[in-house]
Amino acid sequence: MVSKERPKDPTRDRDADFRDRVRTKLLAAAEAIIANEGYAAVQARRVATEAGCAIGTVYNIYGDIDGLILAANTRTLSDLAVALKDAQIRSEGQDLEARLMSLANAYLDFATLNQLRWRAVFEHRLPDDYPIPQAFLDDRRGLLALIESEIGDTGPSDPEERQDAARALFSATHGNVLLALDAKLGPFEPDRCERQIRFLVHHVVIGLGR
Amino acid sequence: MVSKERPKDPTRDRDADFRDRVRTKLLAAAEAIIANEGYAAVQARRVATEAGCAIGTVYNIYGDIDGLILAANTRTLSDLAVALKDAQIRSEGQDLEARLMSLANAYLDFATLNQLRWRAVFEHRLPDDYPIPQAFLDDRRGLLALIESEIGDTGPSDPEERQDAARALFSATHGNVLLALDAKLGPFEPDRCERQIRFLVHHVVIGLGR
Repeated sequence: MVSKERPKDPTRDRDADFRDRVRTKLLAAAEAIIANEGYAAVQARRVATEAGCAIGTVYNIYGDIDGLILAANTRTLSDLAVALKDAQIRSEGQDLEARLMSLANAYLDFATLNQLRWRAVFEHRLPDDYPIPQAFLDDRRGLLALIESEIGDTGPSDPEERQDAARALFSATHGNVLLALDAKLGPFEPDRCERQIRFLVHHVVIGLGR
Repeated sequence: MVSKERPKDPTRDRDADFRDRVRTKLLAAAEAIIANEGYAAVQARRVATEAGCAIGTVYNIYGDIDGLILAANTRTLSDLAVALKDAQIRSEGQDLEARLMSLANAYLDFATLNQLRWRAVFEHRLPDDYPIPQAFLDDRRGLLALIESEIGDTGPSDPEERQDAARALFSATHGNVLLALDAKLGPFEPDRCERQIRFLVHHVVIGLGR
């Protein structure tokens, strides 16, 4: 769009290209640190060194370190969405219990295999009124919409109640996976965690059907 | 027991008294720090200063800082158990949904009003193979037993399945309260959180009754 209105400025393009490359490198550095050590280890000096740029550039591009962590978390949410959509496709045509359990098991697997990235999404806390990027909000909405669409006509007909139902099931699954992985109620046993979630899903599905 | 076998040693009693007083003071200092700032702010130097003892005494009595935090968390679990037992008594004679919701609401209230103490119980992670005190394990067992006893004959007859059911309901409530307080799915709205938990409890109770 810009190039139509103003004469092309090759310096500007080079700057924009450079900025894009640095942005990508910074994000990759942050993602690797989160995956290996957790989000608390993401520091401006370190990602700047790894991306080969000045510390000021980190702030320039991402505002602050929270902005960079949020960008990495947005990628994690997006990967989680892909994993859940795959699970949804795999269980297509099965009954509601099987479809919800397919999503729940994909969630348990994702959290287990990407534990530090997954934790970063839920443990990283932002200052109040911190602007959350639209992509993050969209991915979050997408996760809940996935459950809402599975519940479909079986669930509450009121749209807000159906949203509450999806939030309830998502949060319930999250709580079971989190306390299992943290060994807070006993040692981590993935099969037991799955049985617990199935207890909820099985009875909720029966309850909904009545 | 010891005093029966050996002649009484007044110095020894004074030492034991001193140790008890310091233990109590250290625990009180740690609890206050957790309640106001969170468990990460509990440091040996600081609690020693507040309790008026040497840093070495902290390690002497509690082994390490994790041991002190665990002692404080054991008190929190015990306070939580009292709150849940009160809720259980208040809902006695009501139907299963009302009794489970009474427990869930007491949990939501406790977490909201004692947020940093409650978080410390679930966020504080111990090194693998760290010995967990029996009092902590007993309180944890007690919380789940409370739910098991409410489900009673309505729930699965197999004892292990009934334990899984209690863990499932506890973890589901925890997940809903946690994501609500962390504003992870949207701004914190206690009424909405309660509605989400009620959706689960309501349908699980119907499902169990079939």
